Amino acid sequence: MTQRTFTVVGGGPVGTLLAISLARHGYKVGLYEGRPDSRQTSIYQGKSINIALSDRGWTSLEKVGISTAAKDRAIPMHRRAIHGIDGDLSGLPYGQEGDAIWSVSRGGINEQLLDIADDEPNITTHFEHRLVDIDFESARTTFKVKGDKELVVEADFAFGADGAHSKVRRLAHSLPRFSYSQNYMPQCYIELNIPANPDGSHRLDKNALHIWPRKDFMLIALPNPDGTFTCTLFLNHSGDPSFESLQERAAVQAFFESNFADVMDYLENPADVFMEKAAAPLFLVQVFPWSFNRKVGLIGDAAHAIVPFYGQGMNCGFEDCAELDRLIDVHNHDWNRIFSAYENARKPNADAIAELSKRNFAEMSNLSGDRMFQLRKMIEAKFSQRFPELWTPLYSMVTFSPDVPYSEALRIGDEQNKVMEKIMSLPNIEDDWDEQHVMNELFELASKTLGNA
Amino acid sequence: MTQRTFTVVGGGPVGTLLAISLARHGYKVGLYEGRPDSRQTSIYQGKSINIALSDRGWTSLEKVGISTAAKDRAIPMHRRAIHGIDGDLSGLPYGQEGDAIWSVSRGGINEQLLDIADDEPNITTHFEHRLVDIDFESARTTFKVKGDKELVVEADFAFGADGAHSKVRRLAHSLPRFSYSQNYMPQCYIELNIPANPDGSHRLDKNALHIWPRKDFMLIALPNPDGTFTCTLFLNHSGDPSFESLQERAAVQAFFESNFADVMDYLENPADVFMEKAAAPLFLVQVFPWSFNRKVGLIGDAAHAIVPFYGQGMNCGFEDCAELDRLIDVHNHDWNRIFSAYENARKPNADAIAELSKRNFAEMSNLSGDRMFQLRKMIEAKFSQRFPELWTPLYSMVTFSPDVPYSEALRIGDEQNKVMEKIMSLPNIEDDWDEQHVMNELFELASKTLGNA
Repeated sequence: MTQRTFTVVGGGPVGTLLAISLARHGYKVGLYEGRPDSRQTSIYQGKSINIALSDRGWTSLEKVGISTAAKDRAIPMHRRAIHGIDGDLSGLPYGQEGDAIWSVSRGGINEQLLDIADDEPNITTHFEHRLVDIDFESARTTFKVKGDKELVVEADFAFGADGAHSKVRRLAHSLPRFSYSQNYMPQCYIELNIPANPDGSHRLDKNALHIWPRKDFMLIALPNPDGTFTCTLFLNHSGDPSFESLQERAAVQAFFESNFADVMDYLENPADVFMEKAAAPLFLVQVFPWSFNRKVGLIGDAAHAIVPFYGQGMNCGFEDCAELDRLIDVHNHDWNRIFSAYENARKPNADAIAELSKRNFAEMSNLSGDRMFQLRKMIEAKFSQRFPELWTPLYSMVTFSPDVPYSEALRIGDEQNKVMEKIMSLPNIEDDWDEQHVMNELFELASKTLGNA
Repeated sequence: MTQRTFTVVGGGPVGTLLAISLARHGYKVGLYEGRPDSRQTSIYQGKSINIALSDRGWTSLEKVGISTAAKDRAIPMHRRAIHGIDGDLSGLPYGQEGDAIWSVSRGGINEQLLDIADDEPNITTHFEHRLVDIDFESARTTFKVKGDKELVVEADFAFGADGAHSKVRRLAHSLPRFSYSQNYMPQCYIELNIPANPDGSHRLDKNALHIWPRKDFMLIALPNPDGTFTCTLFLNHSGDPSFESLQERAAVQAFFESNFADVMDYLENPADVFMEKAAAPLFLVQVFPWSFNRKVGLIGDAAHAIVPFYGQGMNCGFEDCAELDRLIDVHNHDWNRIFSAYENARKPNADAIAELSKRNFAEMSNLSGDRMFQLRKMIEAKFSQRFPELWTPLYSMVTFSPDVPYSEALRIGDEQNKVMEKIMSLPNIEDDWDEQHVMNELFELASKTLGNA
């Protein structure tokens, strides 16, 4: 049998990991990326886009056979650092002792994966190749090369790994029975920067994800290895306050000073950046199917763009790759079966993390707000520590339990919700929450409904 | 103030009703329809597309000031006629004595509304004008006239009433922050025909909606005034049995004979029609917003295409018109307010009937199947008759209670579901269902959770 060929559209982290996985299974892979090769065109630029990688991401990399040496360059964040409006600071661990989510540079991890791809003889990588068209019957793709001449590429199969704005997915809109949704969140965002100290150290605790939770809006900050923090302000598109309502510079300045007073000395010209930058929208994309004619597939954000509030976007994309990698072996390279097994296995999990991520905005932005919300988290944490076999908090299932599929985490989390609603409606719960009878009640409810969790 | 102008795109029932409502409020309306005027091009064609109109539809027509004399030409269906697989026939009333849903000809009601529009001096109607483009800033529209020359139309405002495949809505995809979803159901459908008896009478009971419920698929039949029935076969797109699996004529014939034996003498060449016709897909469309720049709005199926399983599509579109009609008065012609009040009032109701319609496939196609399902309906019906102030069955809320918004019906229906799940899990419910203690238990649960329903 001749060596079968794949075209992978999109050389981001997910596309590159997919290419490596396919190449190591013996396929000949053409990896096509629209942008130039960042390793040749840019020196380290200081302001990097950073993302959170957690256990699912690392585990998936290992499953595909990628060493996780990259962890050396990532910064572990063991806790949330919660900045109250009056300047008080509190820490809330993400999980048990030793658990952490990792701040990594998107560009950095992408370049490491591209380096690995370069060492694979089965992969040829092409930059500045922008997809123009794809034939979903034959997997034939057409690229515009360096914005100029067109190139037609034949292959046995193709994958769209071309991100949230996927061209492959948009071209699929014209196919029969393709279900599609794109939904905007009420919030938009802009990125801000906190420079390093003169000696290169971080101005805030670097082993934390910093949150300024203000209920309807919030600011967050993730550490970079060069001492800077990349900050993101999430704020409603319209209403009050919002990107729409804050039009005057003086009002913007006052908004920052009254809400983020403790970090105003660190943020780099936040009001100027706010006035100059266009707020970016947040949207979710859900589609089905993820494969067409057993010839063309979608993977990563191209198949399921989610919002960033659970820090799971790249983790989920890497899991897609790991699952596909596993299914190639399970179905012995029979792509008639692999495509459908892949989409049926991953779709419910992508839908679940989409839902969880959407909900998590309220969770994060309420962290220092509602008293009952806080109380509930305390009761849950206490119970979980005493009876870990009965109760893994939802955040830990999603972030530190790669063996629990997202869809299971969502289901169990909803069961936990029902139990906690009953607990929180106990009389005098505000005074009694630390009493034994509350633990007893919780134990009884949890044993009944979550015994098999 | 000069007379303000509206362009209404789409001269179907909803667009025409909207045009009449706007004209009667003093606006100058241009009504543009892509197809020819059916009143001039077609004589009565025997096979008509019929739809179900129920109380919401009739009430909305009255609210807009349209006489419901059209009821004379509609056929009341008081009950479901359920055809078992072994030929046994049972009747299940839709509501209380006198309640009915009405089989009307889509073309007939459209023509009656067009006649009324012709009598309004403020309306000019243009057929064979197909929308090519719309400027969402200015409400300027461009039409292709009789497939030939282009016409540009200026107006103060415009509405897209151009149906499930709305061109106005598709053009809105390029606007910022437009959320959009299109989801295919697993089922597709084809239409079949039952001719009249030689004397022009109906071959089946004409005051019933006939259902052949077969769990994963079903056949339904609605009466026409000329003695015929229009039948629809709903069947999965793929799987077994499905439009995909039934490829051989012999297999199709066997499928019909084994599932619809009692009506095989009446159906007009069902296997031939099945082999010849392409199965049509069923899809839902949900979008938001429904208005753009306070200049252009969406209404009816253009704003919310739903599946036909609750018979509510046109009812919902007519309700849109009645609500808009009301808001024009409430906000004294201030369209800055009307557009946003309209979309905020209607969107939750459109979403609710979309959800209810989707769920109703299982409800209809299980009607003669699952024993526990039947039992549950019987208990509900009995309780509702004894305590009508505590329990209006969901079907009646949706169909016969125009004062209960769809969103309320959905919410109350979900509460009723929870109550009935508890009742159905009572020990020995299959034997005891008619016992007093079951009614007592139901009374207690219903009073607690549905007291304010």
